Amino acid sequence: MGLVVQKYGGSSVADAESVKRVARRIVETKRAGDDVVVIVSAMGDTTDELIDLAEQVSPNPAPRELDMLLTAGERISMAVLAMAINDLGFEARSYTGSQAGLITDSTHGKARIIDVTPGRIQSAIADGAIAIVAGFQGVAQDTKDITTLGRGGSDTTAVALAAALNADVCEIYTDVDGIFTADPRIAPAARQVPRITYEEMLELAANGAKVLHLRCVEYARRFDLPIHVRSSFSNKTGTLVVSDTSAPEGEAVEQPIIAGVAHDLGDAKVTVVGVPDLPGKAAEIFSAVAEAGVNIDMIVQNVSGSSRRTDVTFTCPMADGQRALSVLEKVKSDIGFDDLTYDDGIAKISLVGAGMRSHPGVSATFFNALAESGINVEMISTSEIRISVVTRADSAGEAVRAVHTAFGLDGSGEAVVYGGTGR
Amino acid sequence: MGLVVQKYGGSSVADAESVKRVARRIVETKRAGDDVVVIVSAMGDTTDELIDLAEQVSPNPAPRELDMLLTAGERISMAVLAMAINDLGFEARSYTGSQAGLITDSTHGKARIIDVTPGRIQSAIADGAIAIVAGFQGVAQDTKDITTLGRGGSDTTAVALAAALNADVCEIYTDVDGIFTADPRIAPAARQVPRITYEEMLELAANGAKVLHLRCVEYARRFDLPIHVRSSFSNKTGTLVVSDTSAPEGEAVEQPIIAGVAHDLGDAKVTVVGVPDLPGKAAEIFSAVAEAGVNIDMIVQNVSGSSRRTDVTFTCPMADGQRALSVLEKVKSDIGFDDLTYDDGIAKISLVGAGMRSHPGVSATFFNALAESGINVEMISTSEIRISVVTRADSAGEAVRAVHTAFGLDGSGEAVVYGGTGR
Repeated sequence: MGLVVQKYGGSSVADAESVKRVARRIVETKRAGDDVVVIVSAMGDTTDELIDLAEQVSPNPAPRELDMLLTAGERISMAVLAMAINDLGFEARSYTGSQAGLITDSTHGKARIIDVTPGRIQSAIADGAIAIVAGFQGVAQDTKDITTLGRGGSDTTAVALAAALNADVCEIYTDVDGIFTADPRIAPAARQVPRITYEEMLELAANGAKVLHLRCVEYARRFDLPIHVRSSFSNKTGTLVVSDTSAPEGEAVEQPIIAGVAHDLGDAKVTVVGVPDLPGKAAEIFSAVAEAGVNIDMIVQNVSGSSRRTDVTFTCPMADGQRALSVLEKVKSDIGFDDLTYDDGIAKISLVGAGMRSHPGVSATFFNALAESGINVEMISTSEIRISVVTRADSAGEAVRAVHTAFGLDGSGEAVVYGGTGR
Repeated sequence: MGLVVQKYGGSSVADAESVKRVARRIVETKRAGDDVVVIVSAMGDTTDELIDLAEQVSPNPAPRELDMLLTAGERISMAVLAMAINDLGFEARSYTGSQAGLITDSTHGKARIIDVTPGRIQSAIADGAIAIVAGFQGVAQDTKDITTLGRGGSDTTAVALAAALNADVCEIYTDVDGIFTADPRIAPAARQVPRITYEEMLELAANGAKVLHLRCVEYARRFDLPIHVRSSFSNKTGTLVVSDTSAPEGEAVEQPIIAGVAHDLGDAKVTVVGVPDLPGKAAEIFSAVAEAGVNIDMIVQNVSGSSRRTDVTFTCPMADGQRALSVLEKVKSDIGFDDLTYDDGIAKISLVGAGMRSHPGVSATFFNALAESGINVEMISTSEIRISVVTRADSAGEAVRAVHTAFGLDGSGEAVVYGGTGR
């Protein structure tokens, strides 16, 4: 008998019928002999509706009060989910983030978890009850005010609680079957990955894969907690995110080189034209941008020719683009550059795989695939387990499919068994 | 500078515009120099909508989880009210019942307040902030689970917190101007009462007046806390509920004899026909009814004639009527009565006033007024400050108007100043 932590997102509990379906799934796990702790998000569009209400009342709601308001969403979903489980003859008790011991800092709207003290959850488990915990929320250590964790907060709650409870696995239920080698909507030949390492998952999440959030994967890696990403609409095995994807003893070993191809259409490209080729100029540019709170992703500086001037190009989230431009415009004369250009018609295509470290041919195959499809590469960036390029946004789909095919990732529509775990 | 506790019901905060209106009123009080603590109910129909959701999920929701669900309602209203106040340039902080120190027993759905430990509210006041507290909810002392207080819970929260904070007054905002000498919908000549004693208010509330709940008045009486019942839709002075309605020094003294006329159409009448006229039979009847959880109001036993049999009649809430009948049917042969009759076409008309203690003519005036209007009296019950009769339901309006006129309560459509306080 083990302990399983399950997290259900808002789309899995969108209405009364969905809540009952999820309740049956939870009860199945309990009936199979495991203890179960469930983290649940707000039902369907509840959070958006509460934000609408706040906007009707106030143009700029106080962050403390916005957190108080939004946490009503999970309060509703967790209570009705507990009711539905009780109706199936199993005891369920719901707990707010505060009651479950999710201790955070006091940064309302994007609080960080400081500590998890799940005494009441442990008591519930000891009593044989199923604990239902509100995702996305906690209580500030110093002010005792209610906080929300921001984007990916419910996934992070699940992983943090699973780690604190020393759970065997944290199951993240979503509306897809798991992690795929590419987004199936643009690469129909994409197949589900049975296992993936934390590092690969981090690179995929950071480069456009939407299924898991960075924070949650980082947390799981720190505690070496297995995450099982799977669909709440089927009983299929999903994708295990673990520290080591080598096959268990006795199973076929076929370590994949490439985990997947990610794409991201959310970035913009800013070029600072005609920067004096003097030491410290890049530092001036990026200090100014950083002070404006803009997150920089890729940076490229062209080689300076005989002109004594160079161009510096970087990418950042589209939402930060105008802020980056206006802060740079202010320091234009100080830095002494000639011009700024802005381009939000770009896509970032990333190839991720722990296996590429030891396979020198990966880059060549990657660039050949793009070249053969006539796709122009505008920027390049690499890490130990990733190669990313910037292309035109309208060639993103073709680029993903070309790379996916070149690395032999195309499946037959069924997930291929490799690395030891079936679907 | 004083401390004012204000309570706003759901109809006062039904939508974003109402919330902003209430925020302006709160800020006016703060601006006038008083500290303000606000208790707020859930917005408009929120509670009903949450109950609907629970019913969609579960035919018989667990009480603990229903409380967790319903408390989301006040969480929403208090957060948006705090936002609206912040927008007016005043600091407001919202607190759940648990955060505000409302400690209750663990009877979910109708918890009783055990203690109030409002440390965080006192800190907020000390910081110059306006504290917004969720009505209707608390936290159980033993289980630490979230509880709701049941009917009248928000009024009771307001009075309990006002008492614990040693507030100068607890203002209960509602959709009428205060307490009236009768229900203006059936007695158009009814006028607002400027002051009324706790005892009178208790009798009125217990006998059909809907504005304040018994629990809240009982609590205020115990702590001698003045309640000011007033409209959230106007700036008129409402009705003060206090221990003593004699006029303040220097003002005109004109102690009213009668506080008002209440009516109640919610009761049914059960007659146990042909009860053997032997000691202990009444006890057998009412023990059986009490064990079924039926609340008895009036009881009349007719004088026994030579038949050695008597009739026992009582009234109870209509909702309990069928339960009373079925439990009596079971003990019919044990007790040895002949028959049961049930009548839910009745009204109870009550005249309430501390002044009637020392005015022996009150009963005579009361019964004469009814007789002159041709209204038949079916049952009579009295307390020191109340006379109640049961009549046919369809003569309730006429009975209220006749009594109201006979005691000189009819106004000119404007509230008459008496007892020292203007409208």
